Amino acid sequence: MADTQGITGDQLKSYIERIEKLEEEKANLQADIREVYSEAKANGFDTKVMRQLVRLRKMDQQDRSEQEELLHVYKTAIGME
Amino acid sequence: MADTQGITGDQLKSYIERIEKLEEEKANLQADIREVYSEAKANGFDTKVMRQLVRLRKMDQQDRSEQEELLHVYKTAIGME
Amino acid sequence: MADTQGITGDQLKSYIERIEKLEEEKANLQADIREVYSEAKANGFDTKVMRQLVRLRKMDQQDRSEQEELLHVYKTAIGME
Amino acid sequence: MADTQGITGDQLKSYIERIEKLEEEKANLQADIREVYSEAKANGFDTKVMRQLVRLRKMDQQDRSEQEELLHVYKTAIGME
Repeated sequence: MADTQGITGDQLKSYIERIEKLEEEKANLQADIREVYSEAKANGFDTKVMRQLVRLRKMDQQDRSEQEELLHVYKTAIGME
Repeated sequence: MADTQGITGDQLKSYIERIEKLEEEKANLQADIREVYSEAKANGFDTKVMRQLVRLRKMDQQDRSEQEELLHVYKTAIGME
Repeated sequence: MADTQGITGDQLKSYIERIEKLEEEKANLQADIREVYSEAKANGFDTKVMRQLVRLRKMDQQDRSEQEELLHVYKTAIGME
Repeated sequence: MADTQGITGDQLKSYIERIEKLEEEKANLQADIREVYSEAKANGFDTKVMRQLVRLRKMDQQDRSEQEELLHVYKTAIGME
């Protein structure tokens, strides 16, 4: 690949191709994740609540309980509970 | 509204209601934007290219031409042009 | 504005300018929303929990309680509660 | 894991853990992608333009040239070129 205004085509192309390969693997993983959710759905699970569960499990246990407690306090304060 | 653990329900509720009002106005504007795009589409315009145009017009003129020039250089360097 | 390959410049420009005006108003509203959250934060409120509250209040009351109940069931089923 | 209201904890937990594993792999890939971009940046490449290149290369060649041509027509029609 010719040099163009100081840009080495080979080097640029190798970065682009490495990125494209990683993006492709990432897209495959995303498809696998969707696959697991649709399998769970087919078995009667609620995928929206499952996603909440996955999000909550990512949180530090203490942060999570503090946040849940504060949400309860706020709900009570504005009459939602 | 009762105070709950030091949280003044009225104050919290007023913040929440102000946010909800602004979010509603924002949603209405988003609907208006979609409306203009569908009107343009009905008149034969390509909305994907229109969105590119809107994005480009947000950019500073010089940044835009530098970026377009560099994209051309990169495309040439990896044989896309 | 000249016609270019059947594209009436004036018509296209008017669509673009209407969209830009609406986008600007939307950006202003977004700034106002951020303003309210930072005001609340300055007054000791937790903005992450406030955002949860705003999201929950958008939901239909019954959907919300069903979802909260199911989340509790799922948490118990996998030993999170 | 006990059954809770008909929900088999084991089955739910296995779905959740499969998803978490896939999400972790996806996050690692995302980190690898960021790594390549920062390597390219350190070697003088403009990562914003590289991302445009990656996006363009995903497009079908004909769609891409049609879109580029139409963007040129629209720019000319509203006096941007």
